[in-house]
Amino acid sequence: MATAGKVIKCKAAVAWEPNKPLVIEEIEVAPPQANEIRMKIVATAVCHTDLYHLLENMYEAGFPTVLGHEAAGIVESIGPGVTEFQPGDKVIPVFFSQCGECRFCKSPRTNQCEKAWSTSDPRMMAPTESRFTCKGKKVLQFTGTSTFSQYTVVKKFAVAKIDPAAPLDKVCLLGCGVCTGYGAAVNTAKVEPGSTCAVFGMGAVGLAAVMGCKAAGAKKIIAVDINPEKFEKAKVFGATDFVNPKDHNKPISEVLSEMTNGGVDFSLECVGNVEVMRSALESCVPGWGVAVIVGWTDMHDVSVRPVQLICGRTWKGSIFGGFKGKNGVPPMVKAYLDKKLKLDEFITHTMPLDQINDAIEMMKHGKCIRAVLNVSPQ
Amino acid sequence: MATAGKVIKCKAAVAWEPNKPLVIEEIEVAPPQANEIRMKIVATAVCHTDLYHLLENMYEAGFPTVLGHEAAGIVESIGPGVTEFQPGDKVIPVFFSQCGECRFCKSPRTNQCEKAWSTSDPRMMAPTESRFTCKGKKVLQFTGTSTFSQYTVVKKFAVAKIDPAAPLDKVCLLGCGVCTGYGAAVNTAKVEPGSTCAVFGMGAVGLAAVMGCKAAGAKKIIAVDINPEKFEKAKVFGATDFVNPKDHNKPISEVLSEMTNGGVDFSLECVGNVEVMRSALESCVPGWGVAVIVGWTDMHDVSVRPVQLICGRTWKGSIFGGFKGKNGVPPMVKAYLDKKLKLDEFITHTMPLDQINDAIEMMKHGKCIRAVLNVSPQ
Repeated sequence: MATAGKVIKCKAAVAWEPNKPLVIEEIEVAPPQANEIRMKIVATAVCHTDLYHLLENMYEAGFPTVLGHEAAGIVESIGPGVTEFQPGDKVIPVFFSQCGECRFCKSPRTNQCEKAWSTSDPRMMAPTESRFTCKGKKVLQFTGTSTFSQYTVVKKFAVAKIDPAAPLDKVCLLGCGVCTGYGAAVNTAKVEPGSTCAVFGMGAVGLAAVMGCKAAGAKKIIAVDINPEKFEKAKVFGATDFVNPKDHNKPISEVLSEMTNGGVDFSLECVGNVEVMRSALESCVPGWGVAVIVGWTDMHDVSVRPVQLICGRTWKGSIFGGFKGKNGVPPMVKAYLDKKLKLDEFITHTMPLDQINDAIEMMKHGKCIRAVLNVSPQ
Repeated sequence: MATAGKVIKCKAAVAWEPNKPLVIEEIEVAPPQANEIRMKIVATAVCHTDLYHLLENMYEAGFPTVLGHEAAGIVESIGPGVTEFQPGDKVIPVFFSQCGECRFCKSPRTNQCEKAWSTSDPRMMAPTESRFTCKGKKVLQFTGTSTFSQYTVVKKFAVAKIDPAAPLDKVCLLGCGVCTGYGAAVNTAKVEPGSTCAVFGMGAVGLAAVMGCKAAGAKKIIAVDINPEKFEKAKVFGATDFVNPKDHNKPISEVLSEMTNGGVDFSLECVGNVEVMRSALESCVPGWGVAVIVGWTDMHDVSVRPVQLICGRTWKGSIFGGFKGKNGVPPMVKAYLDKKLKLDEFITHTMPLDQINDAIEMMKHGKCIRAVLNVSPQ
């Protein structure tokens, strides 16, 4: 392409500092270096983790930054050492890399990767290096992706090539939320046919977890949320029951225990709240119950009485649904194209990148499941 | 036997109240009722859980009681409905019952049992019913066993028949500590050949966990204890390395991480301290590390930063090493008789029941691994 090897000037939503609206700016995106690709972002969604960095964690050294990590686009140019991708390829950036060479990547048991950006200073939520500048300043690349920009540069081991038939404004959701929830049920909890499950939090991740529980053959899937309006949506993805903790004057774990003869077989916490994480563990049946922490928070400890584990429960955590970044995404894209996976049903709003602050406000107030931003024309 | 159907008067060490020395008393032991057996205790050891009830938890409603739950003896008489046992059988009481009929007993995935004494008021550490009286008062049966007595009555589903060739003053250790530690490694953690393990706390349970790790084929077994004298003993059971947290001015999880290229594959907490439980989890490698809580405490919460689980660790707990009570003990007795399992090496002291307070003092101050009390002549 004509832009290859040159700095691209394009539009991006810059987070100059924590807890402030994003600013649409013209930024400079340097050409890809060795083992990197530069891509055009066609569509991106807003995920709660973007808000976590901007509004909750607010770690100063992690700014200025361009947020966004759930997206899809097209390869614009490639750096030296890249053979797997060509300009024009449809791709999804993966915030959770897969170098393919480290001991984690070589093990089928985990999706950790020793080359992940998080191995430097995880609180920054970005690698120290960046290809972005704006007004003469370095701008960080959130989770190594930064998809609230028309162009971005990613490592070759942090991007997945997908089916050319995939509609980018839908499959962008597979860059984070849907894989995270679905995989937590299928890969991490390993939900079993005929089992009883509880999913806490009916955002996109929780709804995807419900979908994963259903795909795994669970016979009872209890959706838990303090917003009763979420139940209709949860049913679409396979929830069989709904519990609103506000409707009960006892701990939710007791309510679920009574509904399920002693507790659920599997619970998935998709909120990112340490009290909910505790409840989700306590809602599992002793003996074999498995609780999975899916929601992200790194600000507080989660606590539990040891006997809750000693009695035979298992506590696990899941990131990106246990999917290895590059290997996990393409089959999920195929499942969508084969109509075995729902994506359209998550999308409640579509808007241009310029309206990103509106999307963030809706997200903050639980008014949307997923807002997809059209960033660049294809 | 001549005593069948009659009340037996015998010697027992009664804990009249928390945090006081035990008192050797004459108690009355009623005949077994339906589905119960009365047994003569030949040998019993003192386990830390006895001390936990007496000196730490000190729950008033759990007294007066006869402590002791790690023992072996001989059936004296049987109640109606008991067909599996005959007077003269060698047996080990199991504080963790196996009714064989509940959904837990029917599942191979757990050793929980719905008929366990702990399903009523677990803080009492005893069922509400008892066959013991002393000086006109009901005396509770600690964990449904009460082995600091010459005779006791146990449920038929809380006792295991063992090989008649077994020396009771040795195999008594299989009633709790050795099965608890060994099984936590083999059954709960499922330690893998070639793996790296850390065991925290070199009491009998920890040493048995070391033995379990070795039996499972671990290549590196790091014993962790603040008493350097414990290392020689740990080596006997298979420890390859020893770390004394007092020798380091950084968290033990960092020390272990440096020793093992990022953390151990398996860690076992055999202390019963919530800070150690946290360290044991944090000492595991991300991605696939499994931490098992083996030590017992129900007084404080254990806390951890969620990201320690989200990065791919698994946290489990284990009680009685995951062995089903009745099924698990006899094969362990056989393993000892076949010289595939060490027991003698745990026994540092042997004494009569009358000296039980000396045994408790030694245990309290870490001066013994296991003290075996000769309770009745065979």
